[in-house]
Amino acid sequence: MILETIKSPADVKTLTQPALETLCREVRETLLKTVSENGGHLASNLGAVELTVALHHVFDSPRDQIVFDVGHQCYTHKLLTGRFAQFSTLRKEGGLSGFCRPNESEHDIFYSGHSGTSVSAGLGLSTAKKLNSDPHYVISVIGDGAFTGGMVYEALNNGGRSNAKHIIILNDNKMSISENVGAFAKYLAVIRSTPQYYTFKASTERTLRRIPSVGQKLVKKLYDLKTDIKNKLYSESTFFEDLGYRYMGPIDGHEISVLIDALQAAKAVDGPVLLHVITQKGHGYPFAEDNPSAFHGVSGFAISSGEAPPAQEDFSGRFGTLLSEAAKDGVPVCAVTAAMGLSTGLHPFAAAYPDRYFDVGIAEEHAVTFAAGLAKNGYLPVFAVYSTFLQRCYDQLVHDVALQNLKVIFAVDRAGFVGEDGETHQGLMDVSFLNTIPRIRIYSPCCFKALAADLNTAIAAEGGPVVVRYPRGTQGEQTELLHWEDPAYATYEAEDASRLLVTYGRITSEAIKAVQILRKEGVTIGLLSLNQIKPLPQPALDMMQHAEKLFFFEEGLRTGSVGEKAALTLLENGYNGAFSLTAVPDTFVAQATVAQQLQKYQLDAAGMCAVIREAEKE
Amino acid sequence: MILETIKSPADVKTLTQPALETLCREVRETLLKTVSENGGHLASNLGAVELTVALHHVFDSPRDQIVFDVGHQCYTHKLLTGRFAQFSTLRKEGGLSGFCRPNESEHDIFYSGHSGTSVSAGLGLSTAKKLNSDPHYVISVIGDGAFTGGMVYEALNNGGRSNAKHIIILNDNKMSISENVGAFAKYLAVIRSTPQYYTFKASTERTLRRIPSVGQKLVKKLYDLKTDIKNKLYSESTFFEDLGYRYMGPIDGHEISVLIDALQAAKAVDGPVLLHVITQKGHGYPFAEDNPSAFHGVSGFAISSGEAPPAQEDFSGRFGTLLSEAAKDGVPVCAVTAAMGLSTGLHPFAAAYPDRYFDVGIAEEHAVTFAAGLAKNGYLPVFAVYSTFLQRCYDQLVHDVALQNLKVIFAVDRAGFVGEDGETHQGLMDVSFLNTIPRIRIYSPCCFKALAADLNTAIAAEGGPVVVRYPRGTQGEQTELLHWEDPAYATYEAEDASRLLVTYGRITSEAIKAVQILRKEGVTIGLLSLNQIKPLPQPALDMMQHAEKLFFFEEGLRTGSVGEKAALTLLENGYNGAFSLTAVPDTFVAQATVAQQLQKYQLDAAGMCAVIREAEKE
Repeated sequence: MILETIKSPADVKTLTQPALETLCREVRETLLKTVSENGGHLASNLGAVELTVALHHVFDSPRDQIVFDVGHQCYTHKLLTGRFAQFSTLRKEGGLSGFCRPNESEHDIFYSGHSGTSVSAGLGLSTAKKLNSDPHYVISVIGDGAFTGGMVYEALNNGGRSNAKHIIILNDNKMSISENVGAFAKYLAVIRSTPQYYTFKASTERTLRRIPSVGQKLVKKLYDLKTDIKNKLYSESTFFEDLGYRYMGPIDGHEISVLIDALQAAKAVDGPVLLHVITQKGHGYPFAEDNPSAFHGVSGFAISSGEAPPAQEDFSGRFGTLLSEAAKDGVPVCAVTAAMGLSTGLHPFAAAYPDRYFDVGIAEEHAVTFAAGLAKNGYLPVFAVYSTFLQRCYDQLVHDVALQNLKVIFAVDRAGFVGEDGETHQGLMDVSFLNTIPRIRIYSPCCFKALAADLNTAIAAEGGPVVVRYPRGTQGEQTELLHWEDPAYATYEAEDASRLLVTYGRITSEAIKAVQILRKEGVTIGLLSLNQIKPLPQPALDMMQHAEKLFFFEEGLRTGSVGEKAALTLLENGYNGAFSLTAVPDTFVAQATVAQQLQKYQLDAAGMCAVIREAEKE
Repeated sequence: MILETIKSPADVKTLTQPALETLCREVRETLLKTVSENGGHLASNLGAVELTVALHHVFDSPRDQIVFDVGHQCYTHKLLTGRFAQFSTLRKEGGLSGFCRPNESEHDIFYSGHSGTSVSAGLGLSTAKKLNSDPHYVISVIGDGAFTGGMVYEALNNGGRSNAKHIIILNDNKMSISENVGAFAKYLAVIRSTPQYYTFKASTERTLRRIPSVGQKLVKKLYDLKTDIKNKLYSESTFFEDLGYRYMGPIDGHEISVLIDALQAAKAVDGPVLLHVITQKGHGYPFAEDNPSAFHGVSGFAISSGEAPPAQEDFSGRFGTLLSEAAKDGVPVCAVTAAMGLSTGLHPFAAAYPDRYFDVGIAEEHAVTFAAGLAKNGYLPVFAVYSTFLQRCYDQLVHDVALQNLKVIFAVDRAGFVGEDGETHQGLMDVSFLNTIPRIRIYSPCCFKALAADLNTAIAAEGGPVVVRYPRGTQGEQTELLHWEDPAYATYEAEDASRLLVTYGRITSEAIKAVQILRKEGVTIGLLSLNQIKPLPQPALDMMQHAEKLFFFEEGLRTGSVGEKAALTLLENGYNGAFSLTAVPDTFVAQATVAQQLQKYQLDAAGMCAVIREAEKE
């Protein structure tokens, strides 16, 4: 096996072309094996195998710095940079990350996870190299989906006038996570579909093959030739050149020799280059080729059949069903998503109400302000978005929605720990940053029943933005035991309790268990589970004010937490009982299972019991 | 005077061309008079006079909805939509806003203040109109500077495939706030400089003049003709058409008749249109024409000489000087700005270190991640940015800087109340949202001396992001009386005090006055002024823990405040004294002078005294 012998990118450089092709096959087998077992991003990684092998053949990492956008395509890079032996630990606690992590390897240059950052980062890196007179290259590898996001254009607008050694590889697989959207995608399709593509490619190849070591002059000539051909072939393909980039391509991203030649040519160009590489998402695994969306992110499957274990009903699915029902009842709902229609459960809505379903691409900022426009003219937009990506439109929430008090509903999915995706994807900040925004109301349902109630409340509410946030996965156990005195909060065993455990959202279920355990041990404790967390319901604050001991537990950051807000109000009103808050400290939380993460931060039943027992000792 | 007779846009429609031209002159005189007295945005408004008059002549506001981007160009719109009589109240407390405010007029469709939102908003508005079968138009008026921001591209990418009745007017004055930057600006320059521009324009005019009422067919023909001409003239001008827009222009934005014809033609086009209008910033006022940057935003000037009263030394200026000095001392500083080089005080640095000065355009997201790239490869980037615009890159702060613990310094200007610019520009949220980000350290100097110390601390600090935030304007009085026991905090009259007034930043000066007044009244109160506000300095927390009464005052939002964080820590540690927090409640703060704003929220000396006296009564 060649892959086993690759200890660093230097070992890729010495391989012959047949050996490189064998290496690609072995990489694909390894990807399939590990991802089918551990879960992860499959289709994009399968599509970038040859490209990554060629990159490490041509460039000299880490002196040349390769920045992978999002990181959905970095597994091969991990396998070629000394991490083959650990690859089976992918996405596990303490194991390899599913994204680029500089603390994992010197070859991982920049953290990745959110889309569209690699061009800005690459431009910063290459500008610093230029200032340092360092002749090495920076290469940003970015999918066509990321080009629906504005940050890429901000960077291109600056990079196009730069003379840093920065090469952008547009890995065009005709998709982001789902089918790509917008005018830019259509534009790429025009380039791709031009019949002369192959002729052009063949001509490039013929020219390049004759050059053993590609010199500056020859490449310039070649480039001029290409520009000539291109200008003749693609009268419309000046988009990147308008932005100041030398456009090269499109080339076939699954032919190693073509890739190597093109990368060498890109290296020799003086000025910023955009190399357009066409790849196939899922390449080499027929099930993924046929259904790339389903194999974008997976949690494990059988290689032989492509089948995954049946999914449990989760919050996302429930949300999608509820939204379609609301539309059926005549509510003028519009659904907005930033390339996450499938994973946020919007597909039934999209099928039933195509005119009112808007996938705007990976463009969260636009999504929010677009929704604000819909709201202004009488519709009820619901933006379904992951908690971690909502961070990207904080200002639009403030400036375009809250300030003008427009009724936009934010369905915030993956709130709380997200498990295996790690630091870049945790939904631990939304409560904290949403709490800073005037007028926003926030609901954090602990179960499907509460989710339905909260969505109805949100739909019926007068004016202003409303957030309903819920976790990845399904509801916890025993929430049917809760006593709902008020739609804004619920209690359990709270009547006679001088001690109150206060929480909200998913871990309510853990809190019920904790109360049961502690009661058995003789601790008279009750549970207050908040459903509306901003503003805090007055009766719930009154309950807290009269408690002797308060134990807050939050699946989110300590700073900016609900407990913090409650502490201030209680203190101002003269509360002088005991108070403790257990939440995620001022840090970023690494990958593990959700259960491991809850355990680590004492947010499961056992952790809650331990915290409370410790306090009882004092 | 015609302008006096314009009670609504309907009155603009009936005017003859000579009358429209007279109206434009009167508008210009009114703009000059009011802005020279009240301050405000002059140059962009002078440039958009004819365009706005033409818009209200051709369209039917508010049924047709005109969305002004940023709002630096909306004054003429205000004058033509029934607000002439109130225009002298511009930017004053209770008066007309300097931006679009829907609560001010039905003709102000969308709040404006931050750049690049009008295309997204316009697309949402027009999509809703389409769903409603409302045949009216939505027009987004947006400057070329805003095109350096990514949100515009996100919107164009979606709008280019839409068939809503949405017209984008690119008001191209070759500038944003300062000289425009980047490849896109260069691209526009190419279009503008094509010699055939005038020929083309003349031909368009000739064709249009012959048509009394512009019918669909004729315009189609005209459009085809134009496309033909354009394709011949501008082989490179396909940028907008690649994005799916029908590009029309460029036309002269100071010729009313040309504008009216072009707007009518744009109206008749079936599908999304981008009309490119060339205007001159400051048009009609020679001082502003010659120096548009200086007349972008002004605080008052003499019309006859163009001279403004000499500026006081302010925090921005001090910061700029300090940064240049640091660079002189060999610190590898890079300065990054998002089109705010002049107003953040970076011009001396830019002149002395042009290689390390980066104006990235109105592109805060890119600015931060680009800075992260510079930091990764050994430079010390300092991003100078207004507090309100820092909201736009929250995720980049989290994902690209804090998560990878990169050393980027954020010089956050206009922190706190900003006065006359109102709701959209207040710097009241930065402490709250920055506090949610792990690892970030925050300093809030109360005087120039502390600013210098904090910048030095930031430069010398080990790893990770550091924020130094300071207000618009100059330092307050008497800060020399402070006793600095520790660089992280200072005290005044605190030795014998059982009561502590706790604050930070600019209002420290007010707090000193308050302590002086209250001491005279026999109240034994001392001041604790925090300089480092995240993390809170332990000795300062210890001081608070031992106080009997704590009075927090913050020039920022209550939610997410420093007081909130202190309350939690104090409560967890058993504090049972009195506690009160005076800060800005869960709301947006409207325009007034800074002094009026401080007074309104009891954050000046008088307000502080009133709060404390009231508490003493209890």
